Amino acid sequence: MTVTRTEPAGLPLGDDFHLYDTTLRDGAQREGISYSVADKLAVARLLDELGVGFIEGGWPGALPKDTEFFARAAEGELILKHAALVAFGSTRKAGAKASEDAQVRALLDSRAPVVTLVAKSDRRHIERALRVDVDEACAMVADTVSFLVGEGRRVFLDAEHFFDGYAFDPDTSLRVLEAGYTAGADVVVLCDTNGGQLPLGIADTVREVAARTGFRLGIHCQDDTSCAVANSIAAVQAGATHVQCTANGYGERAGNADLFAVTGNLVTKLGMDVLPTGAEAELTRVSHALAEIANIAPDTHQAYVGSSAFAHKAGLHASAIKVDPLLYNHIDPSSVGNDMRVLVTEMAGRASLELKGRELGVDLAGRPDAVTSVVAKVKELEAEGWSFEAADASLELLLRKEVDGPAEPPFTLESYRVVLDHRGDGEVISEATVKVHVAGERVIATAEGNGPVHALDAALRKALSPSLSWLDSVELADYKVRILPSHPGSDAVTRVLLKSSDGDQEWTTVGVHGSIVEASWLALCDALAHKSSRC
Amino acid sequence: MTVTRTEPAGLPLGDDFHLYDTTLRDGAQREGISYSVADKLAVARLLDELGVGFIEGGWPGALPKDTEFFARAAEGELILKHAALVAFGSTRKAGAKASEDAQVRALLDSRAPVVTLVAKSDRRHIERALRVDVDEACAMVADTVSFLVGEGRRVFLDAEHFFDGYAFDPDTSLRVLEAGYTAGADVVVLCDTNGGQLPLGIADTVREVAARTGFRLGIHCQDDTSCAVANSIAAVQAGATHVQCTANGYGERAGNADLFAVTGNLVTKLGMDVLPTGAEAELTRVSHALAEIANIAPDTHQAYVGSSAFAHKAGLHASAIKVDPLLYNHIDPSSVGNDMRVLVTEMAGRASLELKGRELGVDLAGRPDAVTSVVAKVKELEAEGWSFEAADASLELLLRKEVDGPAEPPFTLESYRVVLDHRGDGEVISEATVKVHVAGERVIATAEGNGPVHALDAALRKALSPSLSWLDSVELADYKVRILPSHPGSDAVTRVLLKSSDGDQEWTTVGVHGSIVEASWLALCDALAHKSSRC
Repeated sequence: MTVTRTEPAGLPLGDDFHLYDTTLRDGAQREGISYSVADKLAVARLLDELGVGFIEGGWPGALPKDTEFFARAAEGELILKHAALVAFGSTRKAGAKASEDAQVRALLDSRAPVVTLVAKSDRRHIERALRVDVDEACAMVADTVSFLVGEGRRVFLDAEHFFDGYAFDPDTSLRVLEAGYTAGADVVVLCDTNGGQLPLGIADTVREVAARTGFRLGIHCQDDTSCAVANSIAAVQAGATHVQCTANGYGERAGNADLFAVTGNLVTKLGMDVLPTGAEAELTRVSHALAEIANIAPDTHQAYVGSSAFAHKAGLHASAIKVDPLLYNHIDPSSVGNDMRVLVTEMAGRASLELKGRELGVDLAGRPDAVTSVVAKVKELEAEGWSFEAADASLELLLRKEVDGPAEPPFTLESYRVVLDHRGDGEVISEATVKVHVAGERVIATAEGNGPVHALDAALRKALSPSLSWLDSVELADYKVRILPSHPGSDAVTRVLLKSSDGDQEWTTVGVHGSIVEASWLALCDALAHKSSRC
Repeated sequence: MTVTRTEPAGLPLGDDFHLYDTTLRDGAQREGISYSVADKLAVARLLDELGVGFIEGGWPGALPKDTEFFARAAEGELILKHAALVAFGSTRKAGAKASEDAQVRALLDSRAPVVTLVAKSDRRHIERALRVDVDEACAMVADTVSFLVGEGRRVFLDAEHFFDGYAFDPDTSLRVLEAGYTAGADVVVLCDTNGGQLPLGIADTVREVAARTGFRLGIHCQDDTSCAVANSIAAVQAGATHVQCTANGYGERAGNADLFAVTGNLVTKLGMDVLPTGAEAELTRVSHALAEIANIAPDTHQAYVGSSAFAHKAGLHASAIKVDPLLYNHIDPSSVGNDMRVLVTEMAGRASLELKGRELGVDLAGRPDAVTSVVAKVKELEAEGWSFEAADASLELLLRKEVDGPAEPPFTLESYRVVLDHRGDGEVISEATVKVHVAGERVIATAEGNGPVHALDAALRKALSPSLSWLDSVELADYKVRILPSHPGSDAVTRVLLKSSDGDQEWTTVGVHGSIVEASWLALCDALAHKSSRC
């Protein structure tokens, strides 16, 4: 099969600027991440949809899943609109021929049009970890780049430990860059592999290396000083035209430069069109979808895309926000697909709650008494461990109760019993029985489930679904459990957040109790009451 | 009572450099944080122990809890060794006298020796949110500063929205600074209130303002571009000598500059002695303790202090780390009280597992067969949702089983039954019965608890404690629950991490099952097996 050199297609800056993602390789080194091949394909599709220019898919030949990923991508399971697919790998072994090195052949066999080769560019690493001299290290780079370029691949060179190496022995580090560039690499990427750099230093070094070499430079930063995003941006301002990131900053140790914050900054602060028109409004959605695939809870405080990134709590700000939201937000949240939420807490004044009411479609402006009693109720519940910041549907039920009076619940509970048996034969059984009153009748139903909450949910559905036609459309979309530590004078309680979906809408409810099962029950009742109020 | 101007005592740089913490005021605006007065006192004590120079305690007069905090601090509940306590507040209202303004009086009444006044320094905010002209805004600043200085307080001025204001209309912003400085403020603090700045721009502006005014400058950054730490450090490099941070970056929206990353960078990168000798080795402990008080799970990937900040996963690095750890870490982890862990995952090769064995005191060097079978077992369990990255004690049990053969368990289970009743009268009861074999006898015990896991733990203890003398010393230190989403072809499972303590040691175990109760049971059994193996 022939592979031709590929530039990323359909990007506003074409090949002039590279937004390069390495979530699938460097990001996968984050503690807790373990992508299946199907996950990897889904990640690549999302990144391509967003309009990233290069997607590094993994290390074929080194990890079986990565080899399979490239094979399935090449066989048509991955059709990219914007991005070029990149295989990552190392140079030939010392003393070997590039064309005969199994690892180098695996890069070719991956059929990826672009290859990023990693090479050590710190003399200490060359001599002590690689155990070769600088001449051989440079030959390994030059030979491998030449061979791959000769085979029609576009090659980038990741200069590992560049900044530390350049500070220790600049000549060696520059020789490694030169070996790669002269042999045909299009970009040499300066890597802060140990993540110890700060932005002013990065900018100085990038400027100096650009002036001394004239090479096209890229940047790859780790977050060990909490400066990965800042370092990446500073490098771009100093002349780098290729920036390597990972989704949500996933990566080893403190992580990598976050693709979403870097992109947000490039677009909104530096005015660079690094994404296709309108794609920046997808940043929040794509970030959350990628967190879902990685099976990591989204960072609520993540810049640009976190659910709290534009959330205001302080009473001071909440009242001023009514004047002009843009005085208090660094950008329009909707430009990155996020939105402004106003949090309900003891700190926020009445203005916050009125604003929240408007957001939820409950008019509180003329009802100061209702606001007072909701504020008091929220404070009281928050002291017991409830939290309405994420549970909009439970808060709406509280608000409506004050404004419109108690609503007719869709059903009432008489009692439930859950029995969990770990039997003598080792089998584990969860069984629940509910006794409820619905549509004028008393109904008893029993069901089994994987665990106590699942069994209880199943029994309740069995009891209610003959009477409540809308019940079948309601599904559990997400379920979160938090154990709140006990405080002096009180026992630990469990807080459950339940996200429900009916296919059109999603809503979140909360329940708090010493027993996780009762807490889940309370959140489940609110979820059904919310849906019932909309029917 | 007389209050005299106070400089922070016992700090290596004295008054020349201010490490200023605002966790208790700006940090408390983070979604999810709600400090009690006792919490606030505990936070202040920890920050003082660490050696922070200034601790902003809150906004007396605006928030009742903050007023109480200052009162209790002044009455002797808070004795500070290093830090000066700071009260935060706003300037006098428009058209009023500073000496008669209730809010300004509350600052005096707080008896804090230092006051930080917030003043808008962006003309748009002055005119549209404050609704006064620039002359009156400057008079409000000057009058309030003069009055407080006249009363013996040291005053800092937080110039809110400074960077945005300076870009829009530099003269107004500089006039506000001048009003404060001329009236006697010691430091004018340039605030990136909306958090939209980048480090190279921050450095330029700080340099320019320092040159134009000659004032002592401070910096206060929000993290909306993911650059708060970088921006703070860039400002210090450009001449700021007062830096405002919050513990773990807590704060509104994306948060503030993280005290621990800023301090780590100042100490290890810029070589500044901003903490008392040896105190940087407390950074990790204090960070985690403050997360505990805030009731927020520590960020495992936080720079310097996260539990993963020095954790290596990739096989490539793990084998090289055996050569020289400092080639792969930007600093010695122990210098900030952290340590290097090597993660066990499908990616890490055999070298990682041997290293982990050494860490756990299990010698695997001469047992390649044991390593092979442990790697296989770990992979198999991880595919089912288990995770040993945090569960060292469960991993150690796996390792020992391969190396030494199965150990005698402290007891064996015949069966258990947990019954959860939500009764007709609304009462919720959790009751568990266990049937176990221990010390040659069959024992049946029943107990109640707040929830199913608590009841099961109580019943097991009741059954075992007559036979196992060490059991009473073992306590549950932490309990975490994670629902792992279902994947195609499998149901959702629950993963429980259980941290146990016997007063001397802490250890973590893991359990995974469709039922949270069975998952908790598995983790509990491992916890007791671990303790038993040490007796």
